[in-house]
Amino acid sequence: MPTKVANPASGKKSKDAVVHSALKLFNMGGYDGTSVRAIATDAGVNIALVSYYFGGKQGLLEYLMASFFEGYLASLEDAQHETARQASAADQLVMIAEQLIRYQQRYFYLSRFVHREMTLDNQLVRELMSSYLMKEKFLLERVFKKVFDGRNLNPVQIEFAIIQYRDMVIMPFLQPQYLRKVFFMQPSEPSFCTQYVRYIRDWADQVTKGCQKQK
Amino acid sequence: MPTKVANPASGKKSKDAVVHSALKLFNMGGYDGTSVRAIATDAGVNIALVSYYFGGKQGLLEYLMASFFEGYLASLEDAQHETARQASAADQLVMIAEQLIRYQQRYFYLSRFVHREMTLDNQLVRELMSSYLMKEKFLLERVFKKVFDGRNLNPVQIEFAIIQYRDMVIMPFLQPQYLRKVFFMQPSEPSFCTQYVRYIRDWADQVTKGCQKQK
Repeated sequence: MPTKVANPASGKKSKDAVVHSALKLFNMGGYDGTSVRAIATDAGVNIALVSYYFGGKQGLLEYLMASFFEGYLASLEDAQHETARQASAADQLVMIAEQLIRYQQRYFYLSRFVHREMTLDNQLVRELMSSYLMKEKFLLERVFKKVFDGRNLNPVQIEFAIIQYRDMVIMPFLQPQYLRKVFFMQPSEPSFCTQYVRYIRDWADQVTKGCQKQK
Repeated sequence: MPTKVANPASGKKSKDAVVHSALKLFNMGGYDGTSVRAIATDAGVNIALVSYYFGGKQGLLEYLMASFFEGYLASLEDAQHETARQASAADQLVMIAEQLIRYQQRYFYLSRFVHREMTLDNQLVRELMSSYLMKEKFLLERVFKKVFDGRNLNPVQIEFAIIQYRDMVIMPFLQPQYLRKVFFMQPSEPSFCTQYVRYIRDWADQVTKGCQKQK
């Protein structure tokens, strides 16, 4: 689905132009601060086309959110499938993280916008959480059950490990300017992915080698 | 400073009422979606008073952001000072995290609002990062240098450990509804702090016991 977001050669040029302009303007002025008219003007299309494609600004928002999560979860499932036969659970955790980071790098502005919107508390966010983020949790639980296989961890410890893992994967795209401004890192650069994945490997090694204290 | 935010008995009742209403409305409708008039009406004060106290909406925003960070950094420095003689670096990490989590629980809506605003990319955010978040990094570096004392970690590994630590401390207040909706946790409840701090202890034990791989 995200190919529609990033690939203007898909045959739906004007729809892609609207998506592109919407992301740009939402990231600059926020969702509330951006009008459909401004989006249409920036995209060089007639304002009626925005309603035609998306049914208005709310529909456009829903389309962006769903596009992101469909692609994100597909990456997660693909990575899980590809790595299922990896001998080490640590390897699997690392390779899945790498896929998800690459996906977010590829759709950098979309990722940033979606993660930021997800920090709101409204009806749409609640629905996306009950669907996409519940599914994400379910998929990650499968991997972490393998990671903690045979170890006597309580369920809350496993949940916190999942939360921390997800947080590491998401954070550079929710707060890229923090990493830029305070640590002089560039989350959109390929070299960042390489370094960050190395750090996630350290973490995964700790967790899977049982350094994690058992209560 | 945050006492002014949360304590309406401080003698500046109308100023506190404005701050209280602003936080409530900003969290509901966003900063852009909230007018000074709506804030004044909700607070039951004359609209001119908002200009008088804060010089307008931008001034109110700056006041909220600065209030949060002044209190947050004071908590961090106090905790660091109090725990400086703790034998174990792990204990120090855990006790500082606990102080910071309690601070954010006490100013829950303020914390949530500020963290969310900090994900934007604008002039004010850049200034707050160069001042408060640079100082936060500096203070945490002091503790982590003690944590990694004598170990042959490269500087990027130490930076990532700081980033992850900070992220654990902040995340429940940047994304409380994720924890609520997907994990049925309540980041504003005292019991959450107890459980979460136990998890941070596991992490700190791993990091300080040298399970962290050395490259």
